[in-house]
Amino acid sequence: MDKFGKVSFIGFGLINSSLAHIFKLKKLANKTSAFSRRIETRDKIRSLNIVDIVNDDIEDSVKDSDLIVLGVPVGAMESVIKKILPYLKKGVIITDVGSIKKKLVDTLVPLLPKDVYFIPGHPIAGTEKSGPESGFPELFNGRWCILTPYSDTSQKARDKIKFMWEQAGMKVAIMDAEYHDRVLAITSHIPHLVAFSIVGTVTELEDQLKTEVIKYSAGGFRDFTRIAASDPVMWRDVFLNNSDAVLEMLGRFIEDLTALQKSIRWQDGESLEKLFIKTREIRKGIISEEQD
Amino acid sequence: MDKFGKVSFIGFGLINSSLAHIFKLKKLANKTSAFSRRIETRDKIRSLNIVDIVNDDIEDSVKDSDLIVLGVPVGAMESVIKKILPYLKKGVIITDVGSIKKKLVDTLVPLLPKDVYFIPGHPIAGTEKSGPESGFPELFNGRWCILTPYSDTSQKARDKIKFMWEQAGMKVAIMDAEYHDRVLAITSHIPHLVAFSIVGTVTELEDQLKTEVIKYSAGGFRDFTRIAASDPVMWRDVFLNNSDAVLEMLGRFIEDLTALQKSIRWQDGESLEKLFIKTREIRKGIISEEQD
Repeated sequence: MDKFGKVSFIGFGLINSSLAHIFKLKKLANKTSAFSRRIETRDKIRSLNIVDIVNDDIEDSVKDSDLIVLGVPVGAMESVIKKILPYLKKGVIITDVGSIKKKLVDTLVPLLPKDVYFIPGHPIAGTEKSGPESGFPELFNGRWCILTPYSDTSQKARDKIKFMWEQAGMKVAIMDAEYHDRVLAITSHIPHLVAFSIVGTVTELEDQLKTEVIKYSAGGFRDFTRIAASDPVMWRDVFLNNSDAVLEMLGRFIEDLTALQKSIRWQDGESLEKLFIKTREIRKGIISEEQD
Repeated sequence: MDKFGKVSFIGFGLINSSLAHIFKLKKLANKTSAFSRRIETRDKIRSLNIVDIVNDDIEDSVKDSDLIVLGVPVGAMESVIKKILPYLKKGVIITDVGSIKKKLVDTLVPLLPKDVYFIPGHPIAGTEKSGPESGFPELFNGRWCILTPYSDTSQKARDKIKFMWEQAGMKVAIMDAEYHDRVLAITSHIPHLVAFSIVGTVTELEDQLKTEVIKYSAGGFRDFTRIAASDPVMWRDVFLNNSDAVLEMLGRFIEDLTALQKSIRWQDGESLEKLFIKTREIRKGIISEEQD
Protein backbone atom coordinates (compact mmCIF):
# COMPACT_ATOMS: atom_id res chain seq x y z
CA MET A 1 0.00 0.00 0.00
CA ASP A 2 1.11 3.61 -0.67
CA LYS A 3 2.84 5.62 1.97
CA PHE A 4 0.91 8.31 3.76
CA GLY A 5 1.55 11.90 2.69
CA LYS A 6 1.52 14.28 5.64
CA VAL A 7 0.32 12.92 8.96
CA SER A 8 -0.79 15.02 11.87
CA PHE A 9 -0.94 13.69 15.45
CA ILE A 10 -3.34 15.80 17.50
CA GLY A 11 -2.75 15.13 21.18
CA PHE A 12 0.38 13.22 22.06
CA GLY A 13 -0.17 10.79 24.91
CA LEU A 14 0.75 7.12 25.20
CA ILE A 15 -1.05 6.00 22.02
CA ASN A 16 -0.15 8.77 19.61
CA SER A 17 3.46 8.91 20.75
CA SER A 18 3.76 5.13 20.31
CA LEU A 19 2.17 5.39 16.86
CA ALA A 20 4.58 8.20 15.95
CA HIS A 21 7.45 5.84 16.81
CA ILE A 22 6.02 3.35 14.28
CA PHE A 23 5.69 6.02 11.58
CA LYS A 24 9.28 7.05 12.14
CA LEU A 25 10.70 3.51 12.29
CA LYS A 26 8.83 2.30 9.20
CA LYS A 27 8.97 5.61 7.30
CA LEU A 28 5.21 5.41 6.72
CA ALA A 29 4.70 9.09 5.86
CA ASN A 30 6.40 11.83 3.87
CA LYS A 31 6.02 14.23 6.76
CA THR A 32 4.86 13.90 10.36
CA SER A 33 3.55 16.72 12.52
CA ALA A 34 2.30 16.89 16.09
CA PHE A 35 0.23 19.33 18.07
CA SER A 36 -0.56 19.40 21.76
CA ARG A 37 -2.51 22.03 23.68
CA ARG A 38 0.08 22.56 26.40
CA ILE A 39 3.40 24.26 25.69
CA GLU A 40 5.30 21.95 28.11
CA THR A 41 3.99 18.92 26.24
CA ARG A 42 5.08 20.41 22.92
CA ASP A 43 8.56 21.03 24.32
CA LYS A 44 8.71 17.42 25.50
CA ILE A 45 7.67 16.14 22.06
CA ARG A 46 10.36 18.28 20.44
CA SER A 47 13.01 16.82 22.74
CA LEU A 48 11.91 13.26 21.86
CA ASN A 49 12.63 13.80 18.16
CA ILE A 50 10.05 11.35 16.80
CA VAL A 51 8.08 13.69 14.52
CA ASP A 52 9.35 16.06 11.81
CA ILE A 53 7.65 19.14 13.21
CA VAL A 54 5.80 20.16 16.37
CA ASN A 55 3.35 22.98 15.64
CA ASP A 56 2.33 25.67 18.12
CA ASP A 57 -0.97 26.17 16.28
CA ILE A 58 -3.35 23.32 15.55
CA GLU A 59 -4.21 24.90 12.17
CA ASP A 60 -0.61 24.68 10.98
CA SER A 61 -0.49 21.02 11.94
CA VAL A 62 -3.68 19.91 10.16
CA LYS A 63 -4.01 22.25 7.20
CA ASP A 64 -2.19 20.26 4.54
CA SER A 65 -2.48 16.82 6.21
CA ASP A 66 -3.67 13.68 4.43
CA LEU A 67 -4.18 11.82 7.68
CA ILE A 68 -5.10 13.18 11.11
CA VAL A 69 -4.93 10.94 14.17
CA LEU A 70 -6.91 12.32 17.10
CA GLY A 71 -5.32 11.25 20.36
CA VAL A 72 -7.09 13.63 22.72
CA PRO A 73 -9.46 12.60 25.54
CA VAL A 74 -12.92 11.63 24.25
CA GLY A 75 -14.49 14.68 25.87
CA ALA A 76 -12.24 17.02 23.88
CA MET A 77 -12.89 15.48 20.44
CA GLU A 78 -15.88 17.63 19.48
CA SER A 79 -14.16 20.94 20.21
CA VAL A 80 -11.00 19.80 18.41
CA ILE A 81 -13.01 18.83 15.30
CA LYS A 82 -14.81 22.20 15.34
CA LYS A 83 -11.48 23.99 15.62
CA ILE A 84 -9.80 22.18 12.73
CA LEU A 85 -12.84 21.98 10.43
CA PRO A 86 -12.06 25.16 8.41
CA TYR A 87 -8.51 23.99 7.65
CA LEU A 88 -9.14 20.41 6.49
CA LYS A 89 -7.83 19.34 3.10
CA LYS A 90 -10.31 17.69 0.69
CA GLY A 91 -10.10 13.91 0.99
CA VAL A 92 -8.35 13.95 4.36
CA ILE A 93 -8.75 10.82 6.49
CA ILE A 94 -9.42 11.40 10.18
CA THR A 95 -9.18 8.61 12.70
CA ASP A 96 -9.19 8.56 16.49
CA VAL A 97 -7.91 6.28 19.22
CA GLY A 98 -10.67 6.79 21.82
CA SER A 99 -11.94 3.99 24.07
CA ILE A 100 -15.60 4.67 23.30
CA LYS A 101 -17.13 4.87 19.87
CA LYS A 102 -20.92 5.29 19.70
CA LYS A 103 -21.19 8.74 21.24
CA LEU A 104 -18.18 9.89 19.25
CA VAL A 105 -19.72 8.79 15.94
CA ASP A 106 -23.03 10.40 16.87
CA THR A 107 -21.34 13.68 17.78
CA LEU A 108 -18.64 14.01 15.14
CA VAL A 109 -20.16 12.60 11.96
CA PRO A 110 -22.85 15.30 11.56
CA LEU A 111 -20.13 17.96 11.78
CA LEU A 112 -18.00 16.61 8.93
CA PRO A 113 -18.34 17.54 5.24
CA LYS A 114 -18.71 14.77 2.60
CA ASP A 115 -15.09 14.99 1.42
CA VAL A 116 -13.64 14.25 4.85
CA TYR A 117 -13.37 10.54 5.74
CA PHE A 118 -13.71 9.67 9.41
CA ILE A 119 -12.75 6.15 10.50
CA PRO A 120 -13.39 5.67 14.24
CA GLY A 121 -10.78 3.38 15.75
CA HIS A 122 -9.76 1.91 19.07
CA PRO A 123 -6.37 0.28 19.46
CA ILE A 124 -6.82 -1.90 22.58
CA ALA A 125 -3.42 -1.40 24.09
CA GLY A 126 -2.11 0.62 26.95
CA THR A 127 -0.18 0.86 30.13
CA GLU A 128 -0.92 2.93 33.22
CA LYS A 129 1.60 5.51 32.00
CA SER A 130 0.63 8.64 30.12
CA GLY A 131 2.34 11.53 28.34
CA PRO A 132 4.58 11.75 25.23
CA GLU A 133 7.60 10.14 26.91
CA SER A 134 5.63 6.99 27.79
CA GLY A 135 5.26 5.88 24.15
CA PHE A 136 7.15 2.93 22.69
CA PRO A 137 6.81 1.16 19.34
CA GLU A 138 6.09 -2.32 20.74
CA LEU A 139 2.94 -1.17 22.57
CA PHE A 140 0.56 -2.46 19.87
CA ASN A 141 2.29 -5.70 19.07
CA GLY A 142 -0.15 -8.63 18.74
CA ARG A 143 -3.06 -6.62 20.21
CA TRP A 144 -6.45 -6.00 18.66
CA CYS A 145 -7.54 -2.75 17.05
CA ILE A 146 -11.28 -2.31 16.54
CA LEU A 147 -12.55 -0.05 13.77
CA THR A 148 -16.20 1.01 13.82
CA PRO A 149 -16.89 2.49 10.39
CA TYR A 150 -20.45 3.76 9.93
CA SER A 151 -22.57 3.34 6.82
CA ASP A 152 -21.12 6.22 4.77
CA THR A 153 -17.47 5.44 5.33
CA SER A 154 -15.25 5.13 2.28
CA GLN A 155 -13.82 1.62 1.82
CA LYS A 156 -10.50 3.07 0.68
CA ALA A 157 -10.09 5.17 3.81
CA ARG A 158 -11.00 2.18 5.97
CA ASP A 159 -8.37 0.02 4.28
CA LYS A 160 -5.78 2.72 4.78
CA ILE A 161 -6.40 2.87 8.55
CA LYS A 162 -6.44 -0.91 8.73
CA PHE A 163 -3.07 -0.89 6.97
CA MET A 164 -1.72 1.68 9.45
CA TRP A 165 -2.57 -0.42 12.52
CA GLU A 166 -1.31 -3.58 10.88
CA GLN A 167 2.01 -1.81 10.36
CA ALA A 168 1.98 -1.23 14.12
CA GLY A 169 1.63 -4.99 14.61
CA MET A 170 -2.09 -5.04 15.44
CA LYS A 171 -4.83 -7.45 14.43
CA VAL A 172 -7.74 -5.38 13.09
CA ALA A 173 -11.44 -6.16 13.60
CA ILE A 174 -14.48 -4.32 12.30
CA MET A 175 -17.41 -3.89 14.68
CA ASP A 176 -20.58 -1.90 15.20
CA ALA A 177 -19.88 1.12 17.42
CA GLU A 178 -22.59 0.35 19.96
CA TYR A 179 -21.53 -3.27 20.25
CA HIS A 180 -17.91 -2.16 20.69
CA ASP A 181 -18.98 -0.03 23.62
CA ARG A 182 -20.80 -2.93 25.31
CA VAL A 183 -17.84 -5.27 24.89
CA LEU A 184 -15.40 -2.68 26.19
CA ALA A 185 -17.66 -1.80 29.12
CA ILE A 186 -17.00 -5.30 30.43
CA THR A 187 -13.45 -5.96 29.31
CA SER A 188 -12.07 -2.60 30.30
CA HIS A 189 -14.39 0.08 31.70
CA ILE A 190 -15.92 -1.89 34.60
CA PRO A 191 -12.57 -3.42 35.65
CA HIS A 192 -11.08 0.06 35.70
CA LEU A 193 -14.04 1.47 37.62
CA VAL A 194 -13.79 -1.31 40.19
CA ALA A 195 -10.05 -0.80 40.56
CA PHE A 196 -10.49 2.96 40.96
CA SER A 197 -13.22 2.31 43.51
CA ILE A 198 -11.35 -0.21 45.66
CA VAL A 199 -8.17 1.85 45.67
CA GLY A 200 -10.39 4.81 46.57
CA THR A 201 -11.79 2.85 49.53
CA VAL A 202 -8.22 2.37 50.75
CA THR A 203 -7.45 6.09 50.56
CA GLU A 204 -10.13 6.60 53.21
CA LEU A 205 -8.76 4.12 55.75
CA GLU A 206 -7.19 5.34 58.96
CA ASP A 207 -3.49 6.17 58.43
CA GLN A 208 -1.78 3.20 60.09
CA LEU A 209 -3.92 0.63 58.33
CA LYS A 210 -3.40 2.45 55.03
CA THR A 211 0.38 2.26 55.53
CA GLU A 212 0.25 -1.48 56.17
CA VAL A 213 -2.03 -2.03 53.19
CA ILE A 214 0.48 -0.32 50.92
CA LYS A 215 3.34 -2.27 52.48
CA TYR A 216 1.75 -5.69 52.08
CA SER A 217 0.03 -5.08 48.77
CA ALA A 218 1.65 -8.01 46.94
CA GLY A 219 -1.68 -9.83 46.60
CA GLY A 220 -4.40 -8.74 44.21
CA PHE A 221 -4.43 -5.13 45.43
CA ARG A 222 -1.13 -4.38 43.74
CA ASP A 223 -2.65 -5.19 40.32
CA PHE A 224 -5.59 -2.95 41.15
CA THR A 225 -3.36 0.02 42.00
CA ARG A 226 -1.63 -0.33 38.65
CA ILE A 227 -4.98 -0.19 36.85
CA ALA A 228 -6.14 2.68 39.09
CA ALA A 229 -3.06 4.72 38.19
CA SER A 230 -4.35 5.22 34.64
CA ASP A 231 -4.94 8.69 33.20
CA PRO A 232 -7.70 10.44 35.22
CA VAL A 233 -9.08 12.71 32.47
CA MET A 234 -9.17 9.99 29.86
CA TRP A 235 -11.10 7.70 32.21
CA ARG A 236 -13.46 10.41 33.39
CA ASP A 237 -14.44 10.91 29.74
CA VAL A 238 -14.83 7.18 29.15
CA PHE A 239 -17.36 6.83 31.98
CA LEU A 240 -19.24 10.00 31.03
CA ASN A 241 -19.48 8.97 27.37
CA ASN A 242 -20.22 5.27 27.74
CA SER A 243 -22.53 5.66 30.70
CA ASP A 244 -25.38 3.50 29.33
CA ALA A 245 -23.30 0.37 28.77
CA VAL A 246 -21.24 0.95 31.93
CA LEU A 247 -24.32 1.41 34.11
CA GLU A 248 -25.98 -1.69 32.69
CA MET A 249 -22.93 -3.86 33.36
CA LEU A 250 -22.29 -2.22 36.71
CA GLY A 251 -25.84 -3.08 37.74
CA ARG A 252 -25.30 -6.74 36.92
CA PHE A 253 -21.94 -6.74 38.70
CA ILE A 254 -23.30 -5.18 41.90
CA GLU A 255 -26.12 -7.75 41.90
CA ASP A 256 -23.60 -10.60 41.64
CA LEU A 257 -21.33 -9.08 44.27
CA THR A 258 -24.26 -8.70 46.64
CA ALA A 259 -25.11 -12.38 46.15
CA LEU A 260 -21.51 -13.24 47.06
CA GLN A 261 -21.74 -11.04 50.14
CA LYS A 262 -24.79 -13.03 51.19
CA SER A 263 -22.99 -16.35 50.57
CA ILE A 264 -20.16 -15.24 52.84
CA ARG A 265 -22.50 -13.99 55.56
CA TRP A 266 -24.39 -17.30 55.50
CA GLN A 267 -21.20 -19.36 55.26
CA ASP A 268 -22.41 -20.96 52.04
CA GLY A 269 -19.14 -22.58 50.96
CA GLU A 270 -20.76 -24.64 48.23
CA SER A 271 -21.95 -21.61 46.24
CA LEU A 272 -18.58 -19.91 46.61
CA GLU A 273 -16.63 -22.91 45.40
CA LYS A 274 -19.01 -23.45 42.48
CA LEU A 275 -18.51 -19.88 41.30
CA PHE A 276 -14.72 -20.01 41.70
CA ILE A 277 -14.54 -23.18 39.59
CA LYS A 278 -16.59 -21.47 36.86
CA THR A 279 -14.38 -18.37 36.79
CA ARG A 280 -11.28 -20.50 36.42
CA GLU A 281 -12.71 -21.84 33.15
CA ILE A 282 -12.91 -18.36 31.64
CA ARG A 283 -9.18 -17.94 32.15
CA LYS A 284 -8.55 -21.10 30.15
CA GLY A 285 -10.60 -19.57 27.32
CA ILE A 286 -8.39 -16.48 27.32
CA ILE A 287 -5.14 -18.39 27.44
CA SER A 288 -6.18 -20.60 24.52
CA GLU A 289 -7.34 -17.53 22.54
CA GLU A 290 -3.86 -16.05 22.96
CA GLN A 291 -2.22 -19.21 21.73
CA ASP A 292 -4.23 -19.18 18.50
CA MET B 1 21.46 -21.06 62.72
CA ASP B 2 21.32 -24.86 62.98
CA LYS B 3 19.89 -26.95 60.21
CA PHE B 4 16.45 -28.47 60.63
CA GLY B 5 16.28 -32.16 61.49
CA LYS B 6 13.39 -33.88 59.75
CA VAL B 7 10.86 -31.66 58.01
CA SER B 8 7.39 -32.74 56.98
CA PHE B 9 5.35 -30.91 54.33
CA ILE B 10 1.66 -31.67 54.81
CA GLY B 11 -0.24 -30.70 51.68
CA PHE B 12 1.85 -29.93 48.64
CA GLY B 13 0.43 -27.05 46.62
CA LEU B 14 2.16 -23.98 45.24
CA ILE B 15 3.58 -22.79 48.57
CA ASN B 16 4.81 -26.03 50.10
CA SER B 17 6.28 -27.29 46.84
CA SER B 18 8.14 -23.98 46.39
CA LEU B 19 9.38 -24.19 49.97
CA ALA B 20 10.52 -27.79 49.40
CA HIS B 21 12.60 -26.52 46.48
CA ILE B 22 14.32 -24.10 48.89
CA PHE B 23 14.99 -26.87 51.44
CA LYS B 24 16.52 -29.00 48.74
CA LEU B 25 18.60 -26.23 47.14
CA LYS B 26 19.96 -24.94 50.45
CA LYS B 27 20.13 -28.31 52.20
CA LEU B 28 18.20 -26.87 55.16
CA ALA B 29 17.15 -30.22 56.67
CA ASN B 30 18.58 -33.67 57.32
CA LYS B 31 15.50 -35.28 55.88
CA THR B 32 12.42 -33.99 54.03
CA SER B 33 9.10 -35.77 53.80
CA ALA B 34 5.80 -34.94 52.11
CA PHE B 35 2.24 -36.13 52.47
CA SER B 36 -0.79 -35.33 50.38
CA ARG B 37 -4.30 -36.73 50.72
CA ARG B 38 -4.71 -37.74 47.09
CA ILE B 39 -2.74 -40.60 45.59
CA GLU B 40 -2.32 -38.81 42.23
CA THR B 41 -0.78 -35.82 44.01
CA ARG B 42 1.63 -38.11 45.86
CA ASP B 43 2.65 -39.70 42.57
CA LYS B 44 3.26 -36.26 41.10
CA ILE B 45 5.42 -35.27 44.08
CA ARG B 46 7.46 -38.44 43.71
CA SER B 47 8.09 -37.69 40.05
CA LEU B 48 9.28 -34.15 40.90
CA ASN B 49 12.07 -35.47 43.12
CA ILE B 50 12.25 -32.52 45.51
CA VAL B 51 11.71 -34.33 48.83
CA ASP B 52 13.51 -37.38 50.24
CA ILE B 53 10.34 -39.38 50.86
CA VAL B 54 6.64 -39.17 50.03
CA ASN B 55 4.55 -40.97 52.63
CA ASP B 56 1.25 -42.70 51.95
CA ASP B 57 0.21 -42.26 55.58
CA ILE B 58 0.22 -38.89 57.31
CA GLU B 59 1.39 -40.56 60.56
CA ASP B 60 4.59 -41.84 58.94
CA SER B 61 5.35 -38.37 57.62
CA VAL B 62 4.93 -36.48 60.90
CA LYS B 63 5.89 -38.98 63.63
CA ASP B 64 9.59 -38.19 63.97
CA SER B 65 9.52 -34.69 62.46
CA ASP B 66 11.10 -31.63 64.08
CA LEU B 67 9.25 -29.23 61.82
CA ILE B 68 5.84 -29.60 60.21
CA VAL B 69 4.68 -27.14 57.56
CA LEU B 70 0.91 -27.23 57.03
CA GLY B 71 0.11 -26.33 53.45
CA VAL B 72 -3.51 -27.51 53.32
CA PRO B 73 -6.57 -25.27 52.79
CA VAL B 74 -7.51 -23.33 55.92
CA GLY B 75 -10.74 -25.32 56.29
CA ALA B 76 -8.80 -28.59 56.52
CA MET B 77 -6.30 -27.48 59.20
CA GLU B 78 -8.34 -28.52 62.22
CA SER B 79 -8.95 -32.07 61.03
CA VAL B 80 -5.30 -32.44 60.00
CA ILE B 81 -4.11 -31.32 63.44
CA LYS B 82 -6.51 -33.74 65.14
CA LYS B 83 -5.23 -36.56 62.93
CA ILE B 84 -1.52 -35.95 63.58
CA LEU B 85 -1.82 -35.05 67.29
CA PRO B 86 -1.10 -38.57 68.66
CA TYR B 87 2.10 -38.88 66.61
CA LEU B 88 3.78 -35.55 67.34
CA LYS B 89 7.31 -35.54 68.71
CA LYS B 90 7.97 -33.52 71.87
CA GLY B 91 9.30 -30.06 70.97
CA VAL B 92 8.11 -30.19 67.37
CA ILE B 93 7.53 -26.85 65.66
CA ILE B 94 4.38 -26.56 63.55
CA THR B 95 3.83 -23.70 61.19
CA ASP B 96 1.26 -23.06 58.47
CA VAL B 97 1.04 -20.98 55.31
CA GLY B 98 -2.66 -20.05 55.41
CA SER B 99 -3.99 -16.68 54.24
CA ILE B 100 -6.05 -16.09 57.37
CA LYS B 101 -4.75 -16.25 60.92
CA LYS B 102 -7.20 -15.29 63.71
CA LYS B 103 -9.67 -18.14 63.30
CA LEU B 104 -6.83 -20.60 62.84
CA VAL B 105 -5.14 -19.55 66.08
CA ASP B 106 -8.47 -19.69 67.92
CA THR B 107 -9.20 -23.17 66.61
CA LEU B 108 -5.82 -24.87 66.69
CA VAL B 109 -4.11 -23.52 69.80
CA PRO B 110 -6.53 -25.10 72.33
CA LEU B 111 -5.92 -28.49 70.69
CA LEU B 112 -2.14 -28.45 71.08
CA PRO B 113 -0.15 -29.75 74.09
CA LYS B 114 2.42 -27.49 75.81
CA ASP B 115 5.43 -29.17 74.22
CA VAL B 116 4.29 -28.50 70.66
CA TYR B 117 5.19 -25.05 69.30
CA PHE B 118 2.80 -23.55 66.79
CA ILE B 119 3.95 -20.48 64.84
CA PRO B 120 1.17 -19.23 62.53
CA GLY B 121 2.63 -17.84 59.34
CA HIS B 122 1.55 -16.33 56.04
CA PRO B 123 4.05 -15.99 53.20
CA ILE B 124 2.43 -13.36 50.96
CA ALA B 125 3.38 -14.80 47.63
CA GLY B 126 1.52 -16.69 44.99
CA THR B 127 0.49 -17.10 41.42
CA GLU B 128 -2.85 -18.26 40.02
CA LYS B 129 -1.34 -21.73 39.57
CA SER B 130 -1.81 -24.57 42.05
CA GLY B 131 -0.56 -28.12 42.56
CA PRO B 132 2.89 -29.59 43.28
CA GLU B 133 4.25 -28.95 39.78
CA SER B 134 3.54 -25.20 40.04
CA GLY B 135 6.20 -24.62 42.71
CA PHE B 136 9.47 -22.81 42.02
CA PRO B 137 12.16 -21.58 44.41
CA GLU B 138 12.03 -17.90 43.40
CA LEU B 139 8.36 -17.55 44.42
CA PHE B 140 9.15 -15.92 47.77
CA ASN B 141 11.99 -13.68 46.68
CA GLY B 142 11.72 -10.16 48.16
CA ARG B 143 8.15 -10.74 49.40
CA TRP B 144 6.81 -10.33 52.93
CA CYS B 145 6.03 -13.17 55.28
CA ILE B 146 3.85 -12.30 58.26
CA LEU B 147 4.11 -14.35 61.45
CA THR B 148 1.36 -13.97 64.05
CA PRO B 149 2.73 -15.64 67.18
CA TYR B 150 0.30 -15.59 70.14
CA SER B 151 1.26 -14.90 73.74
CA ASP B 152 2.56 -18.37 74.66
CA THR B 153 4.76 -18.90 71.64
CA SER B 154 8.35 -19.92 72.26
CA GLN B 155 10.84 -17.29 71.11
CA LYS B 156 13.21 -19.97 69.86
CA ALA B 157 10.56 -21.58 67.66
CA ARG B 158 9.60 -18.19 66.30
CA ASP B 159 13.21 -17.40 65.39
CA LYS B 160 13.53 -20.72 63.66
CA ILE B 161 10.51 -20.06 61.41
CA LYS B 162 11.74 -16.54 60.75
CA PHE B 163 15.07 -18.05 59.70
CA MET B 164 13.31 -20.51 57.40
CA TRP B 165 11.43 -17.81 55.48
CA GLU B 166 14.50 -15.60 55.31
CA GLN B 167 16.31 -18.50 53.68
CA ALA B 168 13.52 -18.45 51.10
CA GLY B 169 14.34 -14.79 50.43
CA MET B 170 11.45 -13.27 52.36
CA LYS B 171 11.25 -10.23 54.60
CA VAL B 172 9.58 -11.29 57.86
CA ALA B 173 7.16 -9.14 59.90
CA ILE B 174 5.43 -9.94 63.19
CA MET B 175 1.79 -8.92 63.53
CA ASP B 176 -1.30 -9.50 65.62
CA ALA B 177 -3.47 -12.20 63.99
CA GLU B 178 -6.64 -10.12 63.91
CA TYR B 179 -4.84 -7.11 62.45
CA HIS B 180 -3.26 -9.38 59.83
CA ASP B 181 -6.72 -10.50 58.77
CA ARG B 182 -7.96 -6.92 58.39
CA VAL B 183 -4.94 -5.90 56.31
CA LEU B 184 -5.22 -8.98 54.09
CA ALA B 185 -8.96 -8.50 53.67
CA ILE B 186 -8.15 -5.32 51.77
CA THR B 187 -4.91 -6.18 50.03
CA SER B 188 -5.91 -9.63 48.91
CA HIS B 189 -9.31 -11.03 49.86
CA ILE B 190 -11.54 -8.23 48.54
CA PRO B 191 -9.56 -7.88 45.27
CA HIS B 192 -9.93 -11.61 44.75
CA LEU B 193 -13.62 -11.54 45.60
CA VAL B 194 -14.20 -8.68 43.17
CA ALA B 195 -12.26 -10.47 40.43
CA PHE B 196 -14.18 -13.70 41.01
CA SER B 197 -17.41 -11.72 40.95
CA ILE B 198 -16.75 -9.75 37.75
CA VAL B 199 -15.50 -12.80 35.89
CA GLY B 200 -18.60 -14.58 37.20
CA THR B 201 -20.78 -11.81 35.74
CA VAL B 202 -19.17 -12.49 32.37
CA THR B 203 -19.90 -16.22 32.55
CA GLU B 204 -23.59 -15.31 32.54
CA LEU B 205 -23.53 -13.14 29.42
CA GLU B 206 -25.15 -14.37 26.21
CA ASP B 207 -22.75 -16.55 24.23
CA GLN B 208 -21.70 -14.22 21.41
CA LEU B 209 -20.94 -11.33 23.73
CA LYS B 210 -19.02 -13.68 26.03
CA THR B 211 -16.89 -14.82 23.10
CA GLU B 212 -16.05 -11.23 22.15
CA VAL B 213 -15.27 -10.35 25.75
CA ILE B 214 -12.76 -13.18 25.93
CA LYS B 215 -11.28 -12.19 22.57
CA TYR B 216 -10.80 -8.52 23.42
CA SER B 217 -9.86 -8.93 27.06
CA ALA B 218 -6.53 -7.11 26.80
CA GLY B 219 -7.75 -4.28 29.06
CA GLY B 220 -8.24 -4.66 32.79
CA PHE B 221 -10.41 -7.77 32.48
CA ARG B 222 -7.43 -9.91 31.55
CA ASP B 223 -5.78 -9.13 34.92
CA PHE B 224 -9.05 -10.02 36.66
CA THR B 225 -9.26 -13.41 34.97
CA ARG B 226 -5.77 -14.23 36.16
CA ILE B 227 -6.73 -13.41 39.74
CA ALA B 228 -10.03 -15.29 39.36
CA ALA B 229 -8.20 -18.43 38.21
CA SER B 230 -6.79 -18.96 41.72
CA ASP B 231 -7.45 -22.15 43.67
CA PRO B 232 -11.23 -22.45 44.35
CA VAL B 233 -11.05 -24.45 47.61
CA MET B 234 -8.34 -22.32 49.13
CA TRP B 235 -10.32 -19.17 48.41
CA ARG B 236 -13.64 -20.61 49.57
CA ASP B 237 -11.96 -21.26 52.93
CA VAL B 238 -10.45 -17.78 53.07
CA PHE B 239 -13.85 -16.13 52.70
CA LEU B 240 -15.57 -18.50 55.13
CA ASN B 241 -12.86 -18.02 57.76
CA ASN B 242 -12.23 -14.29 57.45
CA SER B 243 -15.86 -13.35 56.97
CA ASP B 244 -15.94 -10.54 59.57
CA ALA B 245 -13.10 -8.51 58.08
CA VAL B 246 -14.15 -9.31 54.51
CA LEU B 247 -17.77 -8.28 55.10
CA GLU B 248 -16.73 -5.05 56.78
CA MET B 249 -14.44 -4.06 53.91
CA LEU B 250 -16.91 -5.29 51.30
CA GLY B 251 -19.56 -3.05 52.85
CA ARG B 252 -17.31 -0.01 52.52
CA PHE B 253 -16.39 -0.96 48.97
CA ILE B 254 -20.00 -1.41 47.82
CA GLU B 255 -20.86 1.98 49.35
CA ASP B 256 -18.04 3.63 47.40
CA LEU B 257 -18.94 1.81 44.19
CA THR B 258 -22.55 2.89 44.54
CA ALA B 259 -21.41 6.51 44.92
CA LEU B 260 -19.43 6.12 41.68
CA GLN B 261 -22.48 4.65 39.98
CA LYS B 262 -24.41 7.74 40.97
CA SER B 263 -21.64 10.05 39.70
CA ILE B 264 -21.78 8.33 36.31
CA ARG B 265 -25.57 8.44 36.15
CA TRP B 266 -25.54 12.17 36.97
CA GLN B 267 -22.59 12.86 34.65
CA ASP B 268 -20.60 14.31 37.53
CA GLY B 269 -17.19 14.42 35.84
CA GLU B 270 -15.62 16.50 38.59
CA SER B 271 -16.11 13.85 41.30
CA LEU B 272 -14.84 11.12 38.99
CA GLU B 273 -11.68 12.99 38.08
CA LYS B 274 -11.02 13.92 41.72
CA LEU B 275 -11.20 10.27 42.76
CA PHE B 276 -9.01 9.08 39.88
CA ILE B 277 -6.31 11.61 40.80
CA LYS B 278 -6.39 10.37 44.41
CA THR B 279 -6.05 6.70 43.43
CA ARG B 280 -3.04 7.49 41.25
CA GLU B 281 -1.25 8.75 44.38
CA ILE B 282 -1.62 5.37 46.14
CA ARG B 283 0.27 3.71 43.30
CA LYS B 284 3.17 6.10 43.84
CA GLY B 285 3.24 5.02 47.49
CA ILE B 286 3.53 1.37 46.47
CA ILE B 287 6.22 1.99 43.88
CA SER B 288 8.33 3.96 46.36
CA GLU B 289 7.82 1.24 49.04
CA GLU B 290 9.21 -1.30 46.59
CA GLN B 291 12.25 0.82 45.90
CA ASP B 292 13.15 1.01 49.60
